[in-house]
Amino acid sequence: MEFKKEFTAAIVIVGNEILSGRTVDKNTSFIASWLNKKGVNVEEVRAIPDKENVIIGTVNELRKKFGYVFTTGGIGPTHDDITSEAISKVFNQKYQYHLEAYKALEEYYKNSDFNEGRKKMAKMPEHAKLIPNPKTFAAGFYVENVFVLPGVPSILQAMLPYLDNIIKNGKKIISLSIDTSKRESEIADQLSLIQKKYLLVDIGSYPYFKDNVGTILVLRSTNKKEIYKCEAEVIEILKINN
Amino acid sequence: MEFKKEFTAAIVIVGNEILSGRTVDKNTSFIASWLNKKGVNVEEVRAIPDKENVIIGTVNELRKKFGYVFTTGGIGPTHDDITSEAISKVFNQKYQYHLEAYKALEEYYKNSDFNEGRKKMAKMPEHAKLIPNPKTFAAGFYVENVFVLPGVPSILQAMLPYLDNIIKNGKKIISLSIDTSKRESEIADQLSLIQKKYLLVDIGSYPYFKDNVGTILVLRSTNKKEIYKCEAEVIEILKINN
Repeated sequence: MEFKKEFTAAIVIVGNEILSGRTVDKNTSFIASWLNKKGVNVEEVRAIPDKENVIIGTVNELRKKFGYVFTTGGIGPTHDDITSEAISKVFNQKYQYHLEAYKALEEYYKNSDFNEGRKKMAKMPEHAKLIPNPKTFAAGFYVENVFVLPGVPSILQAMLPYLDNIIKNGKKIISLSIDTSKRESEIADQLSLIQKKYLLVDIGSYPYFKDNVGTILVLRSTNKKEIYKCEAEVIEILKINN
Repeated sequence: MEFKKEFTAAIVIVGNEILSGRTVDKNTSFIASWLNKKGVNVEEVRAIPDKENVIIGTVNELRKKFGYVFTTGGIGPTHDDITSEAISKVFNQKYQYHLEAYKALEEYYKNSDFNEGRKKMAKMPEHAKLIPNPKTFAAGFYVENVFVLPGVPSILQAMLPYLDNIIKNGKKIISLSIDTSKRESEIADQLSLIQKKYLLVDIGSYPYFKDNVGTILVLRSTNKKEIYKCEAEVIEILKINN
């Protein structure tokens, strides 16, 4: 299944906590599912450290290669939050206070110390457009096709809906899931023949070995007719092959 | 904190199921924690689709850049398992049956159909060295600095210990975690000063907004003396700053 570049995306997870193994990344799964519903296919995910040159290099490479880039993490108040400044450098834009974002933070902190760390959350590339944050105070932003989001899953999830009208919709991706008690090695040969026949359908095969042994087959396609024909053939081999 | 190249690693997650959002990747966290105990630092993680040219390009780039590359996924019996063949191409080695792996599978399947899919699990690059699989039947392998593991977490976790004597140990990475009820924006300025003072320590700041609001500070270093001095200073600002 191939997608037009404009309906492809990459996700960049910025942060040492993923690389050290301390945290399991849940943002990829959420963003990818959300994009899938819009007909946008995630083609690559990268987790990278809080290092400016790595952020700049990675985002620059991916924003040329794919239709959209989503970054998560590194837009908070602390010294290790360097994503916004790095993105300014990606686009050769000044890294400066965004007036609207600054005012919102100033209002929020009016009775307490509006310190440097807090002010920093209003700093963005000169021509950044805000992505509102209904949960806490600090906004995300986007420049061209790069969308900069926070790393905290609950906040990221509350912000994504604001992009509903900004991300262009591609053809809806249909995904069908079939759970079988067969081991994947029992059906591998026949499945391979079906995959060769249905080039517009991606058939994924995922074995599991928990309480029971079995396989989950996942069919994905933007072509409704083909995916249901393919599903029927897959179900057939699951019946016959005993 | 900078690591010598020989003590750095990248992880490559092969498989459409991560990119589609269907599955949350748990292998990164496990491999990274295991490597950390050995003093090896994960510098990059990539999740890529089951596409041969992408696997080859990604592994080739990362194996030159880092000391080790670990791949997960794509070594099973089905049509979408193409990692082993791709790795053969990375090293310009023939993709052929590994005698020992083939015999083990033949023995395992003696009373049932030893079909093409099952035989495929014994196919590897010509000079691959086996990584035993004590859980199921199909082995992983490695060539030079590239380690090819399965995608199923329980199997991967059972296989990693076999690499204990193959991966060289670096200086142990000490990691200290401090949980504070302060918001990270309250302590951002002072934390930044401490980070500037302790260049051998990486201070990570991770806010949480669940039942309670607070911040987890994670200190990482290979320098025992520095990390404990740094920890003491961090604890101090958490007390003073009210």
